[in-house]
Amino acid sequence: MSVVIAGGAGFIGSRLAARLAGRESRILIIDNLCRGKREYIKNLEENGNVEFLEADLSIPEKTLDSIAAWHEKYPVDMVWHMAANSDIPAGIADANVDLRDTFMTTFSLLEAMKKLSIQHIAFASSSAIYGEFKSDIPLHEDIGPLLPISNYGAMKLASEAAISAATASWLKRALIFRFPNVVGIPATHGVILDFVHKLAATPDNLEVLGDGSQQKAYLHVENLVDAMLFIAEKADGKSNIFNIGPEDQGCRVQQIAEIVVSAVSPGASIQYGHGDRGWVGDVPKFRYSTKKLADLGWQPPASSREAVARAVMEIAEQEGVICPRR
Amino acid sequence: MSVVIAGGAGFIGSRLAARLAGRESRILIIDNLCRGKREYIKNLEENGNVEFLEADLSIPEKTLDSIAAWHEKYPVDMVWHMAANSDIPAGIADANVDLRDTFMTTFSLLEAMKKLSIQHIAFASSSAIYGEFKSDIPLHEDIGPLLPISNYGAMKLASEAAISAATASWLKRALIFRFPNVVGIPATHGVILDFVHKLAATPDNLEVLGDGSQQKAYLHVENLVDAMLFIAEKADGKSNIFNIGPEDQGCRVQQIAEIVVSAVSPGASIQYGHGDRGWVGDVPKFRYSTKKLADLGWQPPASSREAVARAVMEIAEQEGVICPRR
Repeated sequence: MSVVIAGGAGFIGSRLAARLAGRESRILIIDNLCRGKREYIKNLEENGNVEFLEADLSIPEKTLDSIAAWHEKYPVDMVWHMAANSDIPAGIADANVDLRDTFMTTFSLLEAMKKLSIQHIAFASSSAIYGEFKSDIPLHEDIGPLLPISNYGAMKLASEAAISAATASWLKRALIFRFPNVVGIPATHGVILDFVHKLAATPDNLEVLGDGSQQKAYLHVENLVDAMLFIAEKADGKSNIFNIGPEDQGCRVQQIAEIVVSAVSPGASIQYGHGDRGWVGDVPKFRYSTKKLADLGWQPPASSREAVARAVMEIAEQEGVICPRR
Repeated sequence: MSVVIAGGAGFIGSRLAARLAGRESRILIIDNLCRGKREYIKNLEENGNVEFLEADLSIPEKTLDSIAAWHEKYPVDMVWHMAANSDIPAGIADANVDLRDTFMTTFSLLEAMKKLSIQHIAFASSSAIYGEFKSDIPLHEDIGPLLPISNYGAMKLASEAAISAATASWLKRALIFRFPNVVGIPATHGVILDFVHKLAATPDNLEVLGDGSQQKAYLHVENLVDAMLFIAEKADGKSNIFNIGPEDQGCRVQQIAEIVVSAVSPGASIQYGHGDRGWVGDVPKFRYSTKKLADLGWQPPASSREAVARAVMEIAEQEGVICPRR
């Protein structure tokens, strides 16, 4: 038996691959190497039980071909679908980006799985499907309405919907993880990396989009992978939808800016913009309920702030940015 | 100014077109004539203010070309998007059907509208987005979770999600109508037409899929159009989502079978199958809340049973089936 990790050379996919490599006998990683990198999985490929295939999973025929040949040699038990566009503003500027990379990858994988009788999927969904809630009710998995404000969120919701229909018809088991903001390395995008890059260019000054009041839940990627593996082991429903995140109400952009400055360029001044969001589609604040996952038995070991602080040090090291005080 | 009706030669689209023809100065009907028929809009085309274009709206470039030329002559104020696959079992057998006809039509229309700065959309969504609720709570517009059990429902939900993201970005106003089962003429599909056809083939016997206990809300197409026009006039939000349906809990398939038999072939015996649904993706029963629409000021003039009874007579006449007792 084997598993496939779609998007397995990306930020989250490669960390998942590293952990699954110790558990599964054979792993096929498929990635279009758009944001993912071969070097993120180099160690795994050398180990022998992990193979890599470069392919665009947004095209149904290519997806089927990619998996069919492997499936014949090593029957696939489960597909971990971590492939997606991760640049939300790019998807707002051009809806085709999320159509292709966020939704059509799901559609193509489901089509291939149906044809090959692969009946288990684990899917990286997102808190972005919830859109912008006006109420103070913590966002639990059964809440409605679902009104995403980015094409990324819309195409993650579309993916969940397609998986839901498949579960009612031919798919035996689905794990749907709704991710918060995930931080850590290998960092390919995100607010911390942006701040680090900005400070590398102008060490005395950090310019922040928006007024810094945006507040979001952050989880470290290693804890995220812990949670996914825990859910895969413990959740026994046919359709298993879980918010994954910290238990706090998140960390403000202002705090992130201060942590990055103090780690990378102490003394730099921080300049804030206006408005409570960085760009259209950015959700200024939300409260995320992780009660369902806590009831299943998993709790995050770190707060949003702690996750950010850990990731800042890792990303500063990744980017080769030396803090004078370290 | 003008409006575009996508899917305007279909069952619901053609009835909407007939009503809009008396209100709007210019109308462009676009349809792929897959289920729609030119004859449904023949009278309108003869009137002079309605033009027809055969085009596949699931292809973004074709959609843009189709609308751009018209938009230059008669600036489009609003797109009424009534195009979709209407054969739910066909979409369950092959997910490509609903991807193409139900979702990609929405995606392509939004892309064309964005490029041409057409900022109002009215969209035919469906109660199928709600999936199968286990609870007895009436399905109101803000309920969750949304777990569709057919690809049709999934791709309608995907369409709503894409419209929601567009509304957060560039779209000025969206009307999203969640339809119940809609009956009337010109009938192109559905349980009544199926029963009429079956009785035409075997007048002494009507075979029903499932045990006849499925219970659904039915609305006559003329009342549905009333409701859409009412919402378009009265709803003043940016994003306006409304369930449209009768206020009762629906009509059972058994009742429909009896009404059709008595109208078309009195005395025919009815044979029921097993199970509480006709096919995978068929929702056996649901309670639909139409309170939001009632609060806006519109109430359906007929019950589910009355809507079915009216449609049965109309469809029997359409199909040329003469009831001996009439």
